[in-house]
Amino acid sequence: MIIDCHGHYTTAPKPLQDFRDAQLAQIKEGKKSCLAPPTMSDDAIRESLEGAQLKFQRERGTDVTIFSPRASAMAHHIGDESVSLAWSEVCNDVIARVCGLYPKNFVGVCQLPQSPGVPPAHSARELERCVNELGFIGCNLNPDPSGGNWTSPPLTDKHWYPLYEKMVELDVPAMVHVSASCNPNFHATGAHYINADTTAFMQFIQGDLFKDFPTLRFIIPHGGGAVPFHWGRYRGLAQDMKRPPLPEMMKNNVFFDTCVYHKPGIELLLRVVPHDNILFGSEMVGAVRGIDPKTGQYYDDTKRYLDAMDLDAKTRTKLFEGNARRVYPRLAKALAH
Amino acid sequence: MIIDCHGHYTTAPKPLQDFRDAQLAQIKEGKKSCLAPPTMSDDAIRESLEGAQLKFQRERGTDVTIFSPRASAMAHHIGDESVSLAWSEVCNDVIARVCGLYPKNFVGVCQLPQSPGVPPAHSARELERCVNELGFIGCNLNPDPSGGNWTSPPLTDKHWYPLYEKMVELDVPAMVHVSASCNPNFHATGAHYINADTTAFMQFIQGDLFKDFPTLRFIIPHGGGAVPFHWGRYRGLAQDMKRPPLPEMMKNNVFFDTCVYHKPGIELLLRVVPHDNILFGSEMVGAVRGIDPKTGQYYDDTKRYLDAMDLDAKTRTKLFEGNARRVYPRLAKALAH
Repeated sequence: MIIDCHGHYTTAPKPLQDFRDAQLAQIKEGKKSCLAPPTMSDDAIRESLEGAQLKFQRERGTDVTIFSPRASAMAHHIGDESVSLAWSEVCNDVIARVCGLYPKNFVGVCQLPQSPGVPPAHSARELERCVNELGFIGCNLNPDPSGGNWTSPPLTDKHWYPLYEKMVELDVPAMVHVSASCNPNFHATGAHYINADTTAFMQFIQGDLFKDFPTLRFIIPHGGGAVPFHWGRYRGLAQDMKRPPLPEMMKNNVFFDTCVYHKPGIELLLRVVPHDNILFGSEMVGAVRGIDPKTGQYYDDTKRYLDAMDLDAKTRTKLFEGNARRVYPRLAKALAH
Repeated sequence: MIIDCHGHYTTAPKPLQDFRDAQLAQIKEGKKSCLAPPTMSDDAIRESLEGAQLKFQRERGTDVTIFSPRASAMAHHIGDESVSLAWSEVCNDVIARVCGLYPKNFVGVCQLPQSPGVPPAHSARELERCVNELGFIGCNLNPDPSGGNWTSPPLTDKHWYPLYEKMVELDVPAMVHVSASCNPNFHATGAHYINADTTAFMQFIQGDLFKDFPTLRFIIPHGGGAVPFHWGRYRGLAQDMKRPPLPEMMKNNVFFDTCVYHKPGIELLLRVVPHDNILFGSEMVGAVRGIDPKTGQYYDDTKRYLDAMDLDAKTRTKLFEGNARRVYPRLAKALAH
């Protein structure tokens, strides 16, 4: 089985964006009334997927996508906690519809109703709802709900602990995933995403988070940001700081996906990062949508880069399936339904 | 000749830090009196280099280091413009002493007296002094003088143009180099530095800076941050955004150094980035000071990784010398003295 651990619903039917637009309009006008959730037919949802994610699953030969709301649209910096909660509920409910329509193709991961300055504990209830009521298997955790101003404490700070307690209790991991950037310095998918990945990894080197939470698990997307390219730098920094070696720190707690859009990058990733800590992912349909004129293939068809590497069967199974099942223990049950 | 384009005076004699400490004490006390510049003997300067940078030059077989004040100590976010100017002048003067004592081994690059919210134009005078009076050949430009809060406009914004005009007039490049981080999210050398590199590159993709300044040149240090690892992502983003292909954008304007502290990373760098845009650098003595137990060699001995690659003579000359001479046209004259 080939499990893509990183997909977002970037092609959702228009009513979802209409709902968001109505929310944004309310914020502008200073209003605060309850908005009706968007209505969309099953057919509209099917149509939005058949020509995109499902088509690519079939064409590329992947089986199931761990699927979450569009990351760049989470925009936790917009509005307050109530806006973020309403938007998260609506987005997560749409993911649940997708998973209900295609239970073999999609398993849900939720958006959290984070908001700048609001305790992460406040996100625990929506996480619990998504896991217990909607059958989701994880969440996307935004280390910077301020959208590029980085006003929250590091992920190793006790600020985040109440949410981690809920994650541990539910036995679900989080993908560390920022959203849109309202800081003009940071292009969202070209800088903010990658910077957040790098930043989170360095925080994990510095902190003792996994002593406090031995079963807490994070997926750092986009191949771990800059980390594999600078593996020697991070090994050296950890050593100079008398911190544990990277494979020891990562072992049961920190995982990278394979959202790296060229073969040399994927090869480096597999050359330096322990194979037990890499999960196949493509971020499809996502940040890069074009076809590479040099290969005639989609940049984000990351399976192709792995297939070209002639991996042994054991490694292949780990990367495409085994590691994902280990990181997302609820996946097995979700797929059995 | 082997030119290391990236070295900082991280081992300066104690009076330099004493001066800074006195400055910091003044800020705390709200005082503003003129501090006497630090005094140090030629012997103290020699001693600080003989056991460190010079020793490594000899051991590793490099000839000359393009040398600037300690980057993490620039700390432009501390104090105001006058503090930053006094500190920059003192640091640059010490670099000039180094270059005077060892004119074959070191060529100067200056720290700029940037300060949050202060127009970059105000740094032009110190740049001019360093180039015209001290014989320096470039500068370090901090894209985030706020130290991790990223409050300045992107590098492609007209905000920076007056300084660029001076750089072009003097025909000197800038290394894009942040300093210490006062944002607890960002470890300085482990996150802030690398994030800034990635961020700057994405800004250059988005903007039309080099149409306005065809001869403006930037070195993005630390191998270009995350960029080579995500070369496919950046190629794809540029393509989706209908921006020029990366090699075309970089051609005469954007260069990466080789401060990547393991062989697989260096190999990737050389595999994807045009060789005309890579300058040998080590950041020695800098971010990572340890010895890799796997190789028995210093992590930051980047020449060793390149030497192990069995490059042809033409490529080798480009990387170790030719490209640096092209990017720093004043280097030839400085070395001739």
